[in-house]
Amino acid sequence: MEEKEISKAVIKRLPRYYRYLGDLLEDGVERISSNELSDRMQVTASQIRQDLNNFGGFGQQGYGYNVKYLYNEIGKILGLDKTYNMIIVGAGNLGQALANYVKFEKRGFWIKGIFDVNPRLQGVTVRGIAIRMTDDLPQFVRDNEIKIAALTLPKENAEQMANLLIENGVKAIWNFAHIDLRLPEDVIVENVHLSESLMQLSYNINRYEREHEIKE
Amino acid sequence: MEEKEISKAVIKRLPRYYRYLGDLLEDGVERISSNELSDRMQVTASQIRQDLNNFGGFGQQGYGYNVKYLYNEIGKILGLDKTYNMIIVGAGNLGQALANYVKFEKRGFWIKGIFDVNPRLQGVTVRGIAIRMTDDLPQFVRDNEIKIAALTLPKENAEQMANLLIENGVKAIWNFAHIDLRLPEDVIVENVHLSESLMQLSYNINRYEREHEIKE
Repeated sequence: MEEKEISKAVIKRLPRYYRYLGDLLEDGVERISSNELSDRMQVTASQIRQDLNNFGGFGQQGYGYNVKYLYNEIGKILGLDKTYNMIIVGAGNLGQALANYVKFEKRGFWIKGIFDVNPRLQGVTVRGIAIRMTDDLPQFVRDNEIKIAALTLPKENAEQMANLLIENGVKAIWNFAHIDLRLPEDVIVENVHLSESLMQLSYNINRYEREHEIKE
Repeated sequence: MEEKEISKAVIKRLPRYYRYLGDLLEDGVERISSNELSDRMQVTASQIRQDLNNFGGFGQQGYGYNVKYLYNEIGKILGLDKTYNMIIVGAGNLGQALANYVKFEKRGFWIKGIFDVNPRLQGVTVRGIAIRMTDDLPQFVRDNEIKIAALTLPKENAEQMANLLIENGVKAIWNFAHIDLRLPEDVIVENVHLSESLMQLSYNINRYEREHEIKE
């Protein structure tokens, strides 16, 4: 397959396709038409065809999609046919929530270590993984070929920590700290800013209420 | 101010403006030009002007923006000048992480209750809030005029729970379950699908690696 520029919007939709196809697989569905998939996902069939055409199509006229094949192909596009060594830096509730999420491992994300600065957490285990002190990080990252680090720590420490990790070989940061990290250009960063998500919720509540008042 | 349709992309950027302006306020900055703000936020000055013009501008030629005024105005647009009674349904690590995040309250989101089905959690307190059993939910939601519910529970139970909450007066669902909820049209839903965020990260790792290989 030739590499071409795929729009961000398409990439954002791919994990959702992957999730629906995974559910279909679990339900034993072998084949699905773009119309049926469209009904389930509540996007238009033409959107689905367009999105998938970015990667060569996958559908046969009149036959619909082979669920397992499409699931695997989208998985490959998303890099889920590989495995990634991952650490979590910050063993608070959020860090522990991530560590407890077994499905990440099913998808190839192996949580190799959890780190914190709080000595009281040293040796506490989360799903069999002992919490270590951040002093051990550089060595650990190198020894275990850690590729992804989830940062679930206060924003004040996030950028310095990210840089330390990158110097020792980490390639990608999954950032939960409420800050935009300034990092070397070749580092992959994916942000999860929970408070910003909540603000979009309150924006929508207020917009709805204003519109509703206007109509009354 | 007249209500007009604001694009989703602009709305998505507003919380980020709000965050940067809040940081500037904390640093004691009173005024900022769109160029300076542009440098800090790494978006173009013209983008900033365009975005803010959706809401009437806020800038005076040559003077830049009054930080506090702009912060407050964007806060109003986001509905942060009001308060919201909120509950968390699902007292696992993720639910507890949300409950422990004090800043939500600073922004007007009051966590009134945390609920779970696990009797062993009954009465356990998180930041002074006792975990209650979900049987008490309908009454609690009505008595406390709960507007927002964060769902941090397994996907199998999410939709039924959401419907129960809505029947009792909840207006908005902050959904962390890995499912797209099918709910009445007037319900506000904001999704946080963590595993989809991680898949975008792995997509980008792989795209980078493919591009890098090609160049070598």
